[in-house]
Amino acid sequence: MRFTSEQRFDDGVLERRFTLGEIPGVLWTPASAPAPLILMGHPGGLDRMYPRLAARARHAAAAGYAAATIELPGAGDRPRSAVAEQARADLRRALEAGEPVSDEIVDRLVLPLVDQAVPEWRTALDALLALPGIRGPVGFSGGVISIGVRLAVVEPRIAAAGLFAGSFVPRSIIEEARAVTIPLLVLLQWDDEGNDRQMALDLFDAFGSKEKTLHANTGGHTGVPAFEGDDANRFFARHLR
Amino acid sequence: MRFTSEQRFDDGVLERRFTLGEIPGVLWTPASAPAPLILMGHPGGLDRMYPRLAARARHAAAAGYAAATIELPGAGDRPRSAVAEQARADLRRALEAGEPVSDEIVDRLVLPLVDQAVPEWRTALDALLALPGIRGPVGFSGGVISIGVRLAVVEPRIAAAGLFAGSFVPRSIIEEARAVTIPLLVLLQWDDEGNDRQMALDLFDAFGSKEKTLHANTGGHTGVPAFEGDDANRFFARHLR
Repeated sequence: MRFTSEQRFDDGVLERRFTLGEIPGVLWTPASAPAPLILMGHPGGLDRMYPRLAARARHAAAAGYAAATIELPGAGDRPRSAVAEQARADLRRALEAGEPVSDEIVDRLVLPLVDQAVPEWRTALDALLALPGIRGPVGFSGGVISIGVRLAVVEPRIAAAGLFAGSFVPRSIIEEARAVTIPLLVLLQWDDEGNDRQMALDLFDAFGSKEKTLHANTGGHTGVPAFEGDDANRFFARHLR
Repeated sequence: MRFTSEQRFDDGVLERRFTLGEIPGVLWTPASAPAPLILMGHPGGLDRMYPRLAARARHAAAAGYAAATIELPGAGDRPRSAVAEQARADLRRALEAGEPVSDEIVDRLVLPLVDQAVPEWRTALDALLALPGIRGPVGFSGGVISIGVRLAVVEPRIAAAGLFAGSFVPRSIIEEARAVTIPLLVLLQWDDEGNDRQMALDLFDAFGSKEKTLHANTGGHTGVPAFEGDDANRFFARHLR
């Protein structure tokens, strides 16, 4: 892990960009240390997502958490995958034609991404937890929700997850979700155009966790109400101490 | 409205029992005044429900709200209705036999109750808002959810509602819900045995409100997590000022 730039905000939060091998990432740390870490998921494209990610990270930092994220495979400046590009084109075509999105397209779109991303996030976690001032337990927050599901199953250092049900979910991931046992807060935008509401509800139902909460709000993909940021902080406050 | 007894708790909350004509009720007021009022719904049987209602009321009072409730028609010491008793017996029989609960039973069980209770709650609201130290806007919190829906439609003094989706809902009430426009927080126990999950989701979908939030938690009817009490207070804090 190599830090490439840093800036400190008025609120005392230190933002550091880094690379982990070829993978770019960003780490935000609050003034208080040691801070429990929240891994922040996103749909890929760190530069495009930066304003929203930085806002989420600084909101979490205000509550005492460090936050970090890395670029997804095939996104930003990372090499494209022909399989993923084809799946994305097929998804777009189905949505534009108003056709149902087939399981086969969802599998091609999401499963290779999960297979590649999850080991990268675990490697990032190794590097982040080796830094001074950052400690476990670790939370995962955001999407791609299938990445969050797999991480929650395979990564014992993740103690709680706030998952954004804002993307299509392969049926095999819904099956994997039965093995998740950590506390969950699942966020669903009720009118999300890039999602399947019933699939999100099926996924919530499948999770094996004894404590799981669904927060569904009116509005589309990017319309998550501001108060959900506070709710997420309170959720992590209950589980990352 | 006639006060019949009062006691003051250690936390400064004043609890007064009252009768409104033949209907018994309870009013809890915080030390601070004037306080916005939350009407607390329940399934009927004030004495049986008292410990939970008093806990909810004092939690709300700690956040600055007055809270009040009245007995439902046909419950507690109030005269029984033959129609409701028959419907309740039919419901019990269907549940014990593991049969689906028919729309016809749900209609007989809930619609006469809503028709009788809603005018009573509005009369109680008149009397409560005439007391010194209590003011609008008013919130409704709890169940029977069909009573909350009808109140939200017909009673303009109710500015926000935290509804507990813990009872069967007639299809005509789901239609009425389209006319609800106030902010809503709907609470659903995911594994509630005395409920129909899909019906609760259909009801949430039907509400016409621009701001509506669903909180679903694992567990049965009486297993609402304690943190939902804080969430409800924060919801009312956003809307009853």
